[in-house]
Amino acid sequence: MSRGHVLFIGAGPGAADLITLRGSRALGSANVVLHDALTDPALHDFAPEAQWIDVGKRGFCDSTAQTRINALLVQHAQTGAIVARLKGGDPSVFGRLEEELLALAEAGISYEVIPGVTSALAAAAATARPLTRRGNGRSVSLTTAMTQDRELRASRRADTEVFYMAGRQLATLSRRLLEAGWPGDTPVSVVSRAGWPDQLFSEHSAATLAAACVLHAGRPAVVTVGVGAAPLAAGEPTASSARLAQGHPSGAPSRP
Amino acid sequence: MSRGHVLFIGAGPGAADLITLRGSRALGSANVVLHDALTDPALHDFAPEAQWIDVGKRGFCDSTAQTRINALLVQHAQTGAIVARLKGGDPSVFGRLEEELLALAEAGISYEVIPGVTSALAAAAATARPLTRRGNGRSVSLTTAMTQDRELRASRRADTEVFYMAGRQLATLSRRLLEAGWPGDTPVSVVSRAGWPDQLFSEHSAATLAAACVLHAGRPAVVTVGVGAAPLAAGEPTASSARLAQGHPSGAPSRP
Repeated sequence: MSRGHVLFIGAGPGAADLITLRGSRALGSANVVLHDALTDPALHDFAPEAQWIDVGKRGFCDSTAQTRINALLVQHAQTGAIVARLKGGDPSVFGRLEEELLALAEAGISYEVIPGVTSALAAAAATARPLTRRGNGRSVSLTTAMTQDRELRASRRADTEVFYMAGRQLATLSRRLLEAGWPGDTPVSVVSRAGWPDQLFSEHSAATLAAACVLHAGRPAVVTVGVGAAPLAAGEPTASSARLAQGHPSGAPSRP
Repeated sequence: MSRGHVLFIGAGPGAADLITLRGSRALGSANVVLHDALTDPALHDFAPEAQWIDVGKRGFCDSTAQTRINALLVQHAQTGAIVARLKGGDPSVFGRLEEELLALAEAGISYEVIPGVTSALAAAAATARPLTRRGNGRSVSLTTAMTQDRELRASRRADTEVFYMAGRQLATLSRRLLEAGWPGDTPVSVVSRAGWPDQLFSEHSAATLAAACVLHAGRPAVVTVGVGAAPLAAGEPTASSARLAQGHPSGAPSRP
């Protein structure tokens, strides 16, 4: 009995060309593709003959939805198919990979994991603000602001802290950052749809972050706090209002 | 006067096929490529006509070497060339990007940054151990264990902590982890040359990490500590000794 195989593929943070070559080739080998809501439809071109199934969970993670995804993975692999599980960003970072791997292990189905660019890295690239800095930026923490019971927490763990999935609650995040001990004037940058041609970038402080809510409404955003959110030098133009990415083909604003 | 342009490109953690499509295309547009020591020679194929210059700094970072790289970037761009600055992993994470961006800004040279897969993500993929876990694995910290004055420090910032550039001092790191409050039986995994066909993976605890030193000697390694280093379930085979990746084309061990 042929059991198939599952390829977990990090699609990268946005536009199709941020997938790795290894990921794009693995996608091309798939018979069935189970993909997140936020992966670029242009990725279809790598596997035009495959059956594409949208398993995106919008809003909060829902364990019923996760159970359904696990079942679909097992089901399709048991027909002998090569199944690509295409995940936004990197599968190992806030990708609910654990549950899916356990379901496959239980069913005796083989798998492999192909990494991808996680959105914190795309946000840093888009704003040309390195997450690490010599001397005072030696650690970066990637955190989900949202707990399982839909509470929002903040912390002050590292020199640079990147919050995922905080876009809907920026006013609360601002309060929590101050409570966690970040000074009010700590630099904070918000990038929504990092890596896409329509990415948006705005800069704030821990105290004024709430203002970002309107600009980035309804768009997946990462919030970078601390050293890695600071402009590089005093001479660099900073704007308290939003800046639109310049529509450069790479999606990255060109400087200076 | 034509001023050229600099493309910072994350080459990914290892093998050439872990570069992004965007990165590979940008590389193909370059006249000159300044590359780190650890980038895959197979990347040459994307820019066979370009002038390739190895600017790799072996061992500890050296500010003289960094000054030379900054000067080369400016020099080549000022001839009007498209210069690719190919960096291992992701440019924004422990890539010394800040210094190079400042040098270009000072010289009035435009640039963009294309993200890449940082090695912590490749190590997680290779070992099929997600860095985040539901419930108890909500934050990941990426840290360099080495300070500017070549001291080794450890911390306990996040549920999962990934140490870069610690491969030469695993015995010291083990001591520092215990001093930082990690229990002796905390799971620790070491992956060297993550993402390459010859990647090696071994698992330890915070107390026994020193044993990894011989196996990974002379190979760039990332050390993952905490929740994200733990095997997924009790049933998963664990080995106290080293496991060799199975030489799978993707470099990722296939399970079960």
